Amino acid sequence: MDEDDKLAGEDSLIQTYFAPLTSAFSGAYGLKEDCAALTPEPGHDLVLTTDAISEGIHFRPGDAPEDIAWRSVAVNVSDLAAKGARPIGYLLSLAFPELPDRDWLKRFTNGLREAQDQFGIVLMGGDTDRRPGSPLSATVMAVGSVPQGCMIRRGTARPGDLIYVSGTLGDAAIGLRVSASAPVTGLADDDRAFLEKRYLRPQPRVALRDALLAHARAAMDISDGLAKDLGRLCNASQLGAEILSASLPLSDPARRAIELHPELANLPLAGGDDYEILAAIAPGQASAFEAAAQSVSIPVTRIGILRPEPGVRIFDADGKLISLRQSGYDHFGL
Amino acid sequence: MDEDDKLAGEDSLIQTYFAPLTSAFSGAYGLKEDCAALTPEPGHDLVLTTDAISEGIHFRPGDAPEDIAWRSVAVNVSDLAAKGARPIGYLLSLAFPELPDRDWLKRFTNGLREAQDQFGIVLMGGDTDRRPGSPLSATVMAVGSVPQGCMIRRGTARPGDLIYVSGTLGDAAIGLRVSASAPVTGLADDDRAFLEKRYLRPQPRVALRDALLAHARAAMDISDGLAKDLGRLCNASQLGAEILSASLPLSDPARRAIELHPELANLPLAGGDDYEILAAIAPGQASAFEAAAQSVSIPVTRIGILRPEPGVRIFDADGKLISLRQSGYDHFGL
Repeated sequence: MDEDDKLAGEDSLIQTYFAPLTSAFSGAYGLKEDCAALTPEPGHDLVLTTDAISEGIHFRPGDAPEDIAWRSVAVNVSDLAAKGARPIGYLLSLAFPELPDRDWLKRFTNGLREAQDQFGIVLMGGDTDRRPGSPLSATVMAVGSVPQGCMIRRGTARPGDLIYVSGTLGDAAIGLRVSASAPVTGLADDDRAFLEKRYLRPQPRVALRDALLAHARAAMDISDGLAKDLGRLCNASQLGAEILSASLPLSDPARRAIELHPELANLPLAGGDDYEILAAIAPGQASAFEAAAQSVSIPVTRIGILRPEPGVRIFDADGKLISLRQSGYDHFGL
Repeated sequence: MDEDDKLAGEDSLIQTYFAPLTSAFSGAYGLKEDCAALTPEPGHDLVLTTDAISEGIHFRPGDAPEDIAWRSVAVNVSDLAAKGARPIGYLLSLAFPELPDRDWLKRFTNGLREAQDQFGIVLMGGDTDRRPGSPLSATVMAVGSVPQGCMIRRGTARPGDLIYVSGTLGDAAIGLRVSASAPVTGLADDDRAFLEKRYLRPQPRVALRDALLAHARAAMDISDGLAKDLGRLCNASQLGAEILSASLPLSDPARRAIELHPELANLPLAGGDDYEILAAIAPGQASAFEAAAQSVSIPVTRIGILRPEPGVRIFDADGKLISLRQSGYDHFGL
């Protein structure tokens, strides 16, 4: 790294690279203050969430700065989307192992800009630190807005509610494997590119917000794998679930990858990084929900039903109960 | 560490140790959701800020879990206090190098509880990660409330405004040195304890909020040393400052430490971790500001004046300009 490409100080770095990302939000005062001021929309609650990503755990050392930036925002916006919240803004806390160079920062902030434009969110403030020897990490706190009292929760499902998921499952987890250093072989380039992109560029389902607000009894985003996250929704609602593994929506590339490599078949259930929506819909709302989702061009698929008996039970095409040891990713799992 | 003292998983850790800290705030839903819902106070803006602390940089490897927890909240509440904001709640993103044991978590959450009780703030949500090989870090995003349009800024001072600081300066920076592995000698135990506590337990000036809202033209908290932070206030306001070094308020223990070790004399100007308030007060408001501060038992001291000419000029008792090379702590400083 050329010395000229290093930065003179934290204040200069913030003004050069990050302040332009706040231009749509006057309450950030161009990052010249150490706080942002947000005037809430009358009659609305604010929805707050935080998720951190770090190198070697949530992204790979070689990932492009644009993709890392996108991911840091997307994983938080995904939480907002599942709550029925309109994204407003985010705070970003960055920890660098060493002084970043200008090219890296330019690419990173380009990725933030892409995410902002895509999700309708804006940088409101942040913090930068240098932590020698630590992996790069980006902690985002995102703020969204819902009509007062309307934040969709995960603990409010009822027995008999139908279980829906958006999009397709397993793409990102398969994508991580087909793009890893020991790649899955035999896959067409297009399929590989599709799956890897599903990993690198999670697409939070922001457009599903109105459908969820109008029709969902409970919802959450799927980040640690369907089985694990459905377990959480069940626990929070004090319910259990029955799902049919054959009903899980798969993309064509994922289906072809699994045909080639049957050991990947578990990933739509137990892989991570889907960032799709898991929703509990009252049976009487199902067709209206499907229509509302269709009207914003987001596919939704019914995969099962909620039951009073605790536990997640997964049935195969023959009606046989599947045992699922690897139930998803837990950062503290033993 | 005994195996029994390790934790079964992230969800269990959160429920056992962190959920009780949210009991005063229904919008956290006992941390069973991945988002919090906050109903804003009508007629008020929300003030948002984030600051991260990490081991080896913002606190020392041997510091007590209670003190680390306190610091993580306090440094953010200090930002809110300077803005005239009433603290409401915070999100906490924790990264552990390894699975923490129960004793550590109990002590850490006890420290959070102490900070919450002291500052009138509550845990709203958070995130935990394990990052093997990384230092422990705690990133807090704090939310406060000010009457709409009233957030106090740093860029709104005017020429002729008087410069005030709260409390005393340099205690924490001196405290860090007298408690370090090569300790300053000759200091009485009480003095050493006072100074070290000023480092370990920053006391954000929350009680000064009404005085600031009523009388301050601009304000910020002093976290990176007076000289550097005053420089920031001046830059943001496009002004300069003149201050008298002899007017800087010192505690008796700090004064005695400097008498013993004259090399510490620079720290009230250029040390960090004060978490006092720096305020610009219009001359006509000065006596009212002083009275308002006195009514909440917070000492405030006038240390200088803002001028149209850029730069911070520091004069000694003889009226001689002091050169200040070491102007504070910048995480990216060269």
